[in-house]
Amino acid sequence: MADTYKVGGMTCGGCARSVTNAIGKLAPGAAVTVDLEAGTVAVEGGVAAETVKKAVEGAGFDFGGQAA
Amino acid sequence: MADTYKVGGMTCGGCARSVTNAIGKLAPGAAVTVDLEAGTVAVEGGVAAETVKKAVEGAGFDFGGQAA
Repeated sequence: MADTYKVGGMTCGGCARSVTNAIGKLAPGAAVTVDLEAGTVAVEGGVAAETVKKAVEGAGFDFGGQAA
Repeated sequence: MADTYKVGGMTCGGCARSVTNAIGKLAPGAAVTVDLEAGTVAVEGGVAAETVKKAVEGAGFDFGGQAA
């Protein structure tokens, strides 16, 4: 079961890779899927929302919380 | 005096911000200027090339060494 979060500021594949790497560094076991068009990031592997927030914001993107 | 490095994979402002943040985290005092068109990053503040490499690669971009 993946948790999906809104992430603002991702506009290209480089951004997607950057966010994926940032989450992977704080949560090595996570499977991360970025949907650029939707502006969302799905994280699988039981990662705390706070950890995702820290990774996303640390990489310079906007964390918009859990996607509806 | 800034040191300028080639960085591959940056294609938009989000990438630029991501690389800037990554360098800033490993070298808090550095002044970072990204030139997207040239694919270069200028780092001011006496930061070791190895530190820049680590930050750039950690963020998911390609470190191409010192720009000519």
